[in-house]
Amino acid sequence: MSLQRYKLTIAYDGSAFHGWQKQEPPGEEPLRTVQGVVEDALVRLLGQPRDVINLTGASRTDSGVHALGQVAHFDADTAIPIERLAMAINSRLPDDIDLRSAEPTRSDFDAIRDAVRKQYRYRLWVADRRPLDRRLVVYPVLRALDVAAMRDAAARLVGTHDLEGFSAAGHGRAETIRHIHHADVEDQGDEVHFVVQGNGFLYNTVRIMAGTMVDVGVGRLTPDTVDEIYRTADRRLAGPTLPPTGLWLEWIEHAREARS
Amino acid sequence: MSLQRYKLTIAYDGSAFHGWQKQEPPGEEPLRTVQGVVEDALVRLLGQPRDVINLTGASRTDSGVHALGQVAHFDADTAIPIERLAMAINSRLPDDIDLRSAEPTRSDFDAIRDAVRKQYRYRLWVADRRPLDRRLVVYPVLRALDVAAMRDAAARLVGTHDLEGFSAAGHGRAETIRHIHHADVEDQGDEVHFVVQGNGFLYNTVRIMAGTMVDVGVGRLTPDTVDEIYRTADRRLAGPTLPPTGLWLEWIEHAREARS
Repeated sequence: MSLQRYKLTIAYDGSAFHGWQKQEPPGEEPLRTVQGVVEDALVRLLGQPRDVINLTGASRTDSGVHALGQVAHFDADTAIPIERLAMAINSRLPDDIDLRSAEPTRSDFDAIRDAVRKQYRYRLWVADRRPLDRRLVVYPVLRALDVAAMRDAAARLVGTHDLEGFSAAGHGRAETIRHIHHADVEDQGDEVHFVVQGNGFLYNTVRIMAGTMVDVGVGRLTPDTVDEIYRTADRRLAGPTLPPTGLWLEWIEHAREARS
Repeated sequence: MSLQRYKLTIAYDGSAFHGWQKQEPPGEEPLRTVQGVVEDALVRLLGQPRDVINLTGASRTDSGVHALGQVAHFDADTAIPIERLAMAINSRLPDDIDLRSAEPTRSDFDAIRDAVRKQYRYRLWVADRRPLDRRLVVYPVLRALDVAAMRDAAARLVGTHDLEGFSAAGHGRAETIRHIHHADVEDQGDEVHFVVQGNGFLYNTVRIMAGTMVDVGVGRLTPDTVDEIYRTADRRLAGPTLPPTGLWLEWIEHAREARS
């Protein structure tokens, strides 16, 4: 058996999933997770034993969080031509997952360790009606936001900073310095989007940043609160952790070179 | 007790409802229906007995069908000022229902009998990716459609016609002649919408018309098939009944005058 490593790019509506990571509580039915459902599809397609197929995802998205470009890798020995592989997998996936691509990659490619940059988007619904046709994929603010003030606040997120003040307690990371490459706020009519790109994030960081942006947008906080949160690393200065419903993992960039 | 009649305009995402109409199977839990959920909210708000509050909806939408402008009436004796009534009801509704308005109306207003015109919209998803962020509110065709041919077909729907050929067997209506005021196809990028307005429809008519439009859009049928279906009243000539997921009851117009 000759194993080839594959890289998958996966989009999903996370509403009906208990997050990315497989959860098999002892003595109970496994929970419905994206990793579990995609692995099941691979097992059925490839006819290989369940324990051979191990899908490693770059980002362990929480329950209810969505993705346009999750990246994962696995090894398999298959005769299916590569140009048909994505379609073959897709046809075995439920309609809340869409496999965007499947490609062979180098044998030491690691979806987690080789990730160098990620972009998240938090979709805020600002119209005063409830967002009926997209209620599972936006967070309803239901009021107008001061987008200019939010943009000012977002710009202050950019740079190399300690993200401790923008993280939930118990994130378990010793190193809390990250580089934020880009952060902006887009006015899209009924929706306002907070977009942030960095080389990594701590637990709940994007949802806390989004909650801070909303607090700035309604005037509860001023843009310079961002500087203060960075300076003091004090979580209490930041806005609330917004729910997963509005959060989208947009894309992940990986190092192209083989690791030495 | 002095009863006032109220007219409600109600929007909902039908995905998680067993349709509009209350269903209470003997010996089982009642099914989750829009009528049942709104009646429960009214009972809690108004503090009147459960059997006094009877909500009559203009259109008994099927399981999974959505609405922007369902209309319903009920009678109540309440001291809540009319300008606060809609907000008070809304605050007791789950987030897949949005009460758009609540207003006092004449005592003989009847949401069903006074309905003179309805507009439906069927949302087709034509991009080749799965519609992840709106999968519950569109129908995925996943391929480009010939919108010009569909417009030609839609135009032929307009007029006074026997809708028998566009209806499911067993609709139980003796009279099958209806007037279609307007029918059109809108190109909205990733979505194509079939819009139809008439003084009434038979069972599944809009979903069969939408299926016929798709068949025209992919070239399986020609626009003049519409004339043939009207002429022969033969259901077999029309396209398939599309699923409820893409169907939206957009608005209902009621006669303004008191009935004589």
